[in-house]
Amino acid sequence: MKLSPDWVVGFVDGEGCFFVGIQRNPAVKIGLQVIPEFRVVQHYRDLDVLHALKKFFGFGRVCQNHDDRWEFRVRRLEQLRTITNFFAQHPLRTKKRVDHHKFSDVLRIMEEGRHLTTEGLSEIARIATTMNTGSRPRLAALLDEDRVHSCVKAPEEK
Amino acid sequence: MKLSPDWVVGFVDGEGCFFVGIQRNPAVKIGLQVIPEFRVVQHYRDLDVLHALKKFFGFGRVCQNHDDRWEFRVRRLEQLRTITNFFAQHPLRTKKRVDHHKFSDVLRIMEEGRHLTTEGLSEIARIATTMNTGSRPRLAALLDEDRVHSCVKAPEEK
Repeated sequence: MKLSPDWVVGFVDGEGCFFVGIQRNPAVKIGLQVIPEFRVVQHYRDLDVLHALKKFFGFGRVCQNHDDRWEFRVRRLEQLRTITNFFAQHPLRTKKRVDHHKFSDVLRIMEEGRHLTTEGLSEIARIATTMNTGSRPRLAALLDEDRVHSCVKAPEEK
Repeated sequence: MKLSPDWVVGFVDGEGCFFVGIQRNPAVKIGLQVIPEFRVVQHYRDLDVLHALKKFFGFGRVCQNHDDRWEFRVRRLEQLRTITNFFAQHPLRTKKRVDHHKFSDVLRIMEEGRHLTTEGLSEIARIATTMNTGSRPRLAALLDEDRVHSCVKAPEEK
């Protein structure tokens, strides 16, 4: 199945998701890891469309999301930048383009290595809570914890 | 906002719905009315995309679905045929194309006026129950009622 750029834009306007996860990870110096992700979730019956997306971009992974839902997923920073560059050249038509811009901002912070600083992480967290539906109770809870508070809200130690 | 055919196909692959409703209507001789419908539902924030779809096809209605959900909707038979002709020329890539074919079959039965016969209505009902997710409990219940049973399952009276 060969996809055209415009079809991909239309499909992602409907089904795509630019997501910025922030997870605890003791292995990371700052204690929190930023995991940006682009994904398209479909029912198993449309697995071939997910593989066609993987072929279209030339990278990414097709794996199970949960139950009968599968996803095309991209997590590597340089590949995500290729994705955002594609949508910069072929703009989304829905308000998802706002998420695309915010996602691109998060990637920039990571490319500059600032996600490893409290200031940069705090900036990413602020952006992430306004993305998608804007409702991120788990992220908000994470940011409300004292430990995380001191991490993302305190000024960076010199 | 100007949309390209490929974008429309991609977006409908994600968000479109070919639906065949069957409703009780005493004003109709056979007691049941077939209401085929093509719709694309979006959050209110993407109302401009729904209007762009209306402009693209040159017909249809943009109206509230429920709460903050709005829809681009087409119900007129000749306009629905224009829609199915468009997707015949620009094929859907997901399994939604199967629904598109079934929907087109329902339109053909209606164009031939056979939806006004018990045989035709029965055929439409059989097609409708296999469309979308294939789970149509309300339609199944409707078809299970004695009155409807006799309507859609009994041979047509001469």
